[in-house]
Amino acid sequence: MPYYRTNYRVYYEDTDAQSVMYYANYLKFAERARTDFLRNLQISQTDLVKKDNLFFVVKKCNIDYIAPALLDDLIEVSVEVTKLSNTSLTMQQVFKKNEKTLANIEVLIVCVDAISIRPKRIPENIRILLNV
Amino acid sequence: MPYYRTNYRVYYEDTDAQSVMYYANYLKFAERARTDFLRNLQISQTDLVKKDNLFFVVKKCNIDYIAPALLDDLIEVSVEVTKLSNTSLTMQQVFKKNEKTLANIEVLIVCVDAISIRPKRIPENIRILLNV
Amino acid sequence: MPYYRTNYRVYYEDTDAQSVMYYANYLKFAERARTDFLRNLQISQTDLVKKDNLFFVVKKCNIDYIAPALLDDLIEVSVEVTKLSNTSLTMQQVFKKNEKTLANIEVLIVCVDAISIRPKRIPENIRILLNV
Amino acid sequence: MPYYRTNYRVYYEDTDAQSVMYYANYLKFAERARTDFLRNLQISQTDLVKKDNLFFVVKKCNIDYIAPALLDDLIEVSVEVTKLSNTSLTMQQVFKKNEKTLANIEVLIVCVDAISIRPKRIPENIRILLNV
Repeated sequence: MPYYRTNYRVYYEDTDAQSVMYYANYLKFAERARTDFLRNLQISQTDLVKKDNLFFVVKKCNIDYIAPALLDDLIEVSVEVTKLSNTSLTMQQVFKKNEKTLANIEVLIVCVDAISIRPKRIPENIRILLNV
Repeated sequence: MPYYRTNYRVYYEDTDAQSVMYYANYLKFAERARTDFLRNLQISQTDLVKKDNLFFVVKKCNIDYIAPALLDDLIEVSVEVTKLSNTSLTMQQVFKKNEKTLANIEVLIVCVDAISIRPKRIPENIRILLNV
Repeated sequence: MPYYRTNYRVYYEDTDAQSVMYYANYLKFAERARTDFLRNLQISQTDLVKKDNLFFVVKKCNIDYIAPALLDDLIEVSVEVTKLSNTSLTMQQVFKKNEKTLANIEVLIVCVDAISIRPKRIPENIRILLNV
Repeated sequence: MPYYRTNYRVYYEDTDAQSVMYYANYLKFAERARTDFLRNLQISQTDLVKKDNLFFVVKKCNIDYIAPALLDDLIEVSVEVTKLSNTSLTMQQVFKKNEKTLANIEVLIVCVDAISIRPKRIPENIRILLNV
């Protein structure tokens, strides 16, 4: 299954008054990584809407916070497709700082019709890219 | 000219690692207040898009930060229309905590066509409400 | 077990280019509700840090997204303490719009020492309030 | 005067229901660029707090929004120190997309004591780096 990883910096915007990354902002980094993973496979989410009349929505999200990310940290975020079905896919994402795991996130994503917002079969050309 | 004020709480999401409200988030509170000001005048921004084919965009924004807002603070945010022209309006917004001014914001807002995104005359029914 | 609910408005800041509430921002509303729930019980998180040398951190978070929240929606967010142990508590949070459930969130929160960031027993006066 | 520029991607988190970058989020990108500019000069903001007992706060911010940034855009953000005084500095920041200017931001930043939060002279080693 395809695997991807990249790095994002923690800026003031990401932190809170406890001097750590605010818990909701892990989901921002996770979404950046999924978008960059798709972009790396030449899949553009704006094209999906315009040309294929579909987009991906998050249906479930399970997060384990293990250790805090701090201001100025460079965080590695990985993306792995662990399950691919007709209309959905599951991704495992790991946050690391110097090999130490900070958080694990499991995301269930559903492909939906851009008009009806109902589940729609993931197009074959995308399935192939996600299922190597 | 119409004047409105309301209160918003500072939560963890609004703060940063300096233990104060993050500087960009003042613009969030300012926009909430402008939206609630319009809602209070029975002007719905979603209706403006759907029925009048227009929306408001911020063109300029000048912010003076005077004293920090802190976690758990209840902040008063005011909105005053200080200038109204054919396609735009200027608003002065003051942030206060217990009568002490924390920030002043001046915002220039332009009414634009929802399709062309070009300046469009503010509808007469809205001009009347903004110009009492 | 204590139960609390309150309402928050969806503003432009909360939405994304899919015209729905951005998936990470549900966690902001959830945290606001937990904070307001504690405030309603006369528990101040800033006092907890200053006087009791402790704060609460989120360790796990499971979110089911059922239906989207939209711009201008007034969302009801509930908080229910479903489990209370020595150093942690579990909360169930439901997002509703006009009785329709939009999202369910389960949050595991751990009480930690403000210096060592290690699990610490929840003070008795707070246990009593959370365990009525 | 020192000049720096870098690029940031627009993700879903940055957009709003008008399908453009939310107006407050320009300030996030601007702050990322200022931080990366300082990091590029080997100035660490976390070290400034710990070792020099000071940090920088934004006192004024003037933003002109010229054209919208859109989802997936790669935005160039520049930083130029245009004025340096004893306790403060002014920075001009330009947002561009393929040579087209999207926004101009002028920021007045003050160096403050980390304890008293009062203006403090910018340390000589930093003045030299900012004044080449």
